[in-house]
Amino acid sequence: MTNRQELKDSQKESLGESLQQVIAILEKHRLIENLVHKQNMPKHDLVELLVHKQNLNELQKKLDLLHPADVAYILEALPLEERLKVWELVKAERDGEILLEVSDSVRQTLIADMDSEELLAAAEQLDTDELADLAPDLPKDVLQDLMDSLDSQNRERLQSALSYQDDAVGALMDFDIVTIRENITLEVALRYLRRLGSLPDHTDKLFVVDRHDILLGVLPLKRMVVNDLDVSVADVMAEDAVVFYPEDIADDAAKAFERYDLVTAPVVDANKKLIGRITIDAVMDFIRDEADSDKLSMAGLREEEDFFASVWKSVQNRWAWLAINLITALIASRVIGLFEGSIEKIVALAALMPIVAGIGGNSGNQTTTMIVRGLALGQISTHNMKSLVTKELGVALLNGLIWGGVLALIAFSLYNNYQLGLVMMAAMTLNLLLAAIMGVMIPLVMNKFGRDPAVGSSVLITAVTDSGGFFIFLAIATIFLI
Amino acid sequence: MTNRQELKDSQKESLGESLQQVIAILEKHRLIENLVHKQNMPKHDLVELLVHKQNLNELQKKLDLLHPADVAYILEALPLEERLKVWELVKAERDGEILLEVSDSVRQTLIADMDSEELLAAAEQLDTDELADLAPDLPKDVLQDLMDSLDSQNRERLQSALSYQDDAVGALMDFDIVTIRENITLEVALRYLRRLGSLPDHTDKLFVVDRHDILLGVLPLKRMVVNDLDVSVADVMAEDAVVFYPEDIADDAAKAFERYDLVTAPVVDANKKLIGRITIDAVMDFIRDEADSDKLSMAGLREEEDFFASVWKSVQNRWAWLAINLITALIASRVIGLFEGSIEKIVALAALMPIVAGIGGNSGNQTTTMIVRGLALGQISTHNMKSLVTKELGVALLNGLIWGGVLALIAFSLYNNYQLGLVMMAAMTLNLLLAAIMGVMIPLVMNKFGRDPAVGSSVLITAVTDSGGFFIFLAIATIFLI
Repeated sequence: MTNRQELKDSQKESLGESLQQVIAILEKHRLIENLVHKQNMPKHDLVELLVHKQNLNELQKKLDLLHPADVAYILEALPLEERLKVWELVKAERDGEILLEVSDSVRQTLIADMDSEELLAAAEQLDTDELADLAPDLPKDVLQDLMDSLDSQNRERLQSALSYQDDAVGALMDFDIVTIRENITLEVALRYLRRLGSLPDHTDKLFVVDRHDILLGVLPLKRMVVNDLDVSVADVMAEDAVVFYPEDIADDAAKAFERYDLVTAPVVDANKKLIGRITIDAVMDFIRDEADSDKLSMAGLREEEDFFASVWKSVQNRWAWLAINLITALIASRVIGLFEGSIEKIVALAALMPIVAGIGGNSGNQTTTMIVRGLALGQISTHNMKSLVTKELGVALLNGLIWGGVLALIAFSLYNNYQLGLVMMAAMTLNLLLAAIMGVMIPLVMNKFGRDPAVGSSVLITAVTDSGGFFIFLAIATIFLI
Repeated sequence: MTNRQELKDSQKESLGESLQQVIAILEKHRLIENLVHKQNMPKHDLVELLVHKQNLNELQKKLDLLHPADVAYILEALPLEERLKVWELVKAERDGEILLEVSDSVRQTLIADMDSEELLAAAEQLDTDELADLAPDLPKDVLQDLMDSLDSQNRERLQSALSYQDDAVGALMDFDIVTIRENITLEVALRYLRRLGSLPDHTDKLFVVDRHDILLGVLPLKRMVVNDLDVSVADVMAEDAVVFYPEDIADDAAKAFERYDLVTAPVVDANKKLIGRITIDAVMDFIRDEADSDKLSMAGLREEEDFFASVWKSVQNRWAWLAINLITALIASRVIGLFEGSIEKIVALAALMPIVAGIGGNSGNQTTTMIVRGLALGQISTHNMKSLVTKELGVALLNGLIWGGVLALIAFSLYNNYQLGLVMMAAMTLNLLLAAIMGVMIPLVMNKFGRDPAVGSSVLITAVTDSGGFFIFLAIATIFLI
């Protein structure tokens, strides 16, 4: 036992090591190539070629042992040239599975390197639901050939799977369903399963249907094994299973999986006809992807970026955000421009103004993050809005007095001007109050207009607290100090 | 069927509605109280009291029908006073489950409202692994009473569960394990299960142990139902199951669950003795919590904040971040202070300098987000560092020339000074290059020193690009324009 167990343990923990080993072999390989190249050796130098070949064999063996997800991980971590070298070594019949596992941007680099035949061969290894994930990245002619090669049931499934939005349950659905009838006994059901010989991944329940494939209930395997063999399926099946429709929003389905601790759930059409199922692994992938894309878009990256994408591709992925920020920065700059006369007279204002703007931005972002979270959880309504705004204003006021007071002291000690200190404190407090109000309002308004408040709120609040902070500070200073 | 199905469907989708209904009842309730109060009615006015009581009864019935997770959700969405009113209406025997579901900060408000006896009664409803989640929030004397009330096995389990770090597998583990021996046939095993009558939630496999509880393998229910009854457990069990140790890092376990599509997995001690299991719902909760706390800490919130926390509590939750930002803003301010002479001569510098600093910060954050992501996935190593830095520098250079060029034109058109435009362009390009280098280096260095790069990188990069941007722009301007 100890040995067997350790084998799996090492497999579990050695992903980083696998990557290191692949890199080491590639390094060796590169060294040899460099040698051959630099010293202008005859290319067919037998010894070199032998070592080279041995290297690649070693690498190929290594890759064959790895889980498709692990090969995908290694491909993502390699710069383009080496990535394609490794990709060539992967056995053709594994191409499909691995293409499913890599990120979108890396998948594109791999597909660009394959010809139509290779792509078709890779696609033919996949189930219909997996094909649906791959299809959008395939060249049109390959996709057409693929459609032609499918039987009518699978073609229909693929077409319908392709018709769902990425964020719909239909896009997460697979077709690995095992169905039974309600009027048989558990003994007959078990005999049927034994004849099947194996069950699809994640099968924790069978779907009970009538002869028109209308879903009548679900029979968890757990119930099959604890109940007497002579009871009928109808007696032990759960009739109140959570079901989904392909048009349901995937995020709601994910929440239902968490709330009701599901492993699989049936997907039915409007007539309650069973058409597929969702499994927890699809749901987990979905949750992970959502969290990732939230993080990326908060930093202004349009999509997951291949680490080794070309400079030009990366610039495209990032430009929109920089353009927006350029505009907001220009507005803030013009606000300062209004007070150039004041700054000329008291140049200390130029040095102090970014502090007021900056702290306002941070504080506003804290408020916005809270509100975005509350909106995502559906816990913010008109009913509790008033308490929320009151609280945020209280926090802003307290922070304004505390940090504004600290700043007043610092400004006084630097410029020996107590009036300047008082202006700092007043401006700070007012900008924090502005940040609190806008920090609540911006995500609420965005939400009201059907936009995702997680994506743009942070830019907007920073824009307001920057321009607002400069204006408040410079205006107060102009009134009281000039 | 249609009727039954729709019942569950409506349950699935009515969470928002449930919240609205509870709020509506509370509103009615408050109106009545206000009436009684304002008009100075005799408090015992019978009619009013009756309506009031009816209201609360209606609310209580509503709550009894809801899933504990749904009650938790409603409690979190209510301001403190109403939250406690609803909490009192929840049946005592459900208190424990609901306390487990609410967020940490809300749990504290609920526990503060309960006396020792109520807490002890709530805790006694829970399993040992659930108790371990609740224990840190219980008053010491209640925890002691609770320990005393447990039998020795459960006390030991609770103590060991409490000894694990929050981010260790031990903290996610539960003890709902069903074990069998390897030398029996499937028929005997199934008979045993039928005698048990039910299996714990999420049971997708049984754990095969010897008589010393040493784990020998796992027997998926799927295999039990497709294999012949006369084969032995040893013949069909999987010996190469993924196992975890209680000290394993929970995040690694979560990744293994995703990678190997697990639903449950055994947890063993150093001698391979089975001590518990992890289930996918614990893993999903963990992933969700991690993603949440990442988002919060990126915005400088120490922990999940109760929407209706007191102003003072919120200030405490947020002050550390504001203090750090105050310090970095002060440094930037002192950098500007160095060039007050230049600003006095060309006041346009004051208006233009925040643009250079701001765009640098945005661009640096894009780079940092990429690198933090790569580090989290373990895909960044010394091997690919060079390609990464080269690429980021290329992106920075291109962006600098493009956006710097745009800015140069704007500066020229505003101030009719082409030299100022050229200074803008040069400063922008240099600050973007600085942002690229630091955007790569900061998370790498933080990671090297064992700190989570997701948490502080964004503050640091912004600090560098602010101070750096001001310095670069003002220094170049001073050299070439003054």
